[in-house]
Amino acid sequence: MEEIKTLTERTSDAIVSYIIKQELKEGERLPTETELMKILDVSRTTLREAIKMLASRNIVEARQGSGIFVSRNTGITDDPLGFVFIKDKKKLVSDLLEFRMMIEPRIAARAAINATQKDAEELEYLAREVEKMYELGKSHKTEDAKFHAKLGEISGNLVFPNLMPIIFQAIDMFIASTNAELKYETIDTHRAIVEAVKRNDPDAAEDAMMMHLIYNRNYLRNYNDRTID
Amino acid sequence: MEEIKTLTERTSDAIVSYIIKQELKEGERLPTETELMKILDVSRTTLREAIKMLASRNIVEARQGSGIFVSRNTGITDDPLGFVFIKDKKKLVSDLLEFRMMIEPRIAARAAINATQKDAEELEYLAREVEKMYELGKSHKTEDAKFHAKLGEISGNLVFPNLMPIIFQAIDMFIASTNAELKYETIDTHRAIVEAVKRNDPDAAEDAMMMHLIYNRNYLRNYNDRTID
Repeated sequence: MEEIKTLTERTSDAIVSYIIKQELKEGERLPTETELMKILDVSRTTLREAIKMLASRNIVEARQGSGIFVSRNTGITDDPLGFVFIKDKKKLVSDLLEFRMMIEPRIAARAAINATQKDAEELEYLAREVEKMYELGKSHKTEDAKFHAKLGEISGNLVFPNLMPIIFQAIDMFIASTNAELKYETIDTHRAIVEAVKRNDPDAAEDAMMMHLIYNRNYLRNYNDRTID
Repeated sequence: MEEIKTLTERTSDAIVSYIIKQELKEGERLPTETELMKILDVSRTTLREAIKMLASRNIVEARQGSGIFVSRNTGITDDPLGFVFIKDKKKLVSDLLEFRMMIEPRIAARAAINATQKDAEELEYLAREVEKMYELGKSHKTEDAKFHAKLGEISGNLVFPNLMPIIFQAIDMFIASTNAELKYETIDTHRAIVEAVKRNDPDAAEDAMMMHLIYNRNYLRNYNDRTID
């Protein structure tokens, strides 16, 4: 924490400060390379190194020929908690589910309290998208993740949307490791969550989300019993 | 997700795979630059770019003259969820406390279930370190964070230790924004957590942690009432 920073590190810190001060949002363009060199008083080489460093942390994205942009989910990588380095993936899947059970029912309750009619409609749309994918026999992974992310967004808590990459990893690993279908259980509990959010009923939203996750944990429990290695 | 990766990105992916396959742990040394160039069949320039990319994601650390090492908290940066980009810090402090209230009492309960005598002794030592800092009139921030991290470790859930940088940020921002002392409340509730963990009593551990966080939230509530801006 206290170590001396290199010029590249200080330059990338300065770019982060610039983004914050200028209130640049996701997808917005930063000044050109030449302008940034002037603003930060650094060489092109240093600037490019700093940009690469920020790109690997998902803070900016350099698009060939069109400039430097603020990344989506600024500052959050696909694997923010380094799960790739955890060896026991079977235990990780189960521990991630435990984590989800701690936070997602409460997130759903918060979402039910905060939801406007527009929020509820958007959530309902996403639930229908999940059902559509099931009907087409396609993976519902992305749509499922969007449904859960929407609840985090509606909750109004600033931390929850940023936790979503972790929830995505949990969903991804769960599906990949179990091949779980859980079609009817997912559709029913998603619908129950949508109804509760529509009625601004936090207890019903919390219960429905908990039931959703319990179906997942029961599946995992039975699955692990069948496949003791 | 599906975009074509550059040679540097593919090289950094290959280094990540190497670390995982060779089961290199935190602090362990990777092969030398020359060896890695051979193993990965890339130029020195590409290798160095890949190493820099991994360093900015806290995966490896290049120490001048002594080699490349696997970083502590591999793959988890100091700000994994990009909180630096959230503007409303006052709301963030309160939302982080809400997040802590969802997970930490349950983590404490898990820790109480799992704790060996050695775990309990280590936790007690850390609680005493916090008390010592209070007595010396110094900041107890680092010691406090270690106490909470220890519970995450004892819990046995693979996800909780990786969430700790977020808890650290929460503690840090809370102290920075409120100047909260809460000396006696902290000492008492920490002691109650230690006692519950010693007795392997999950309910008492959960209650004590919840009480600890409620003291914090009450402080924040009163603080915000006094400082309406």
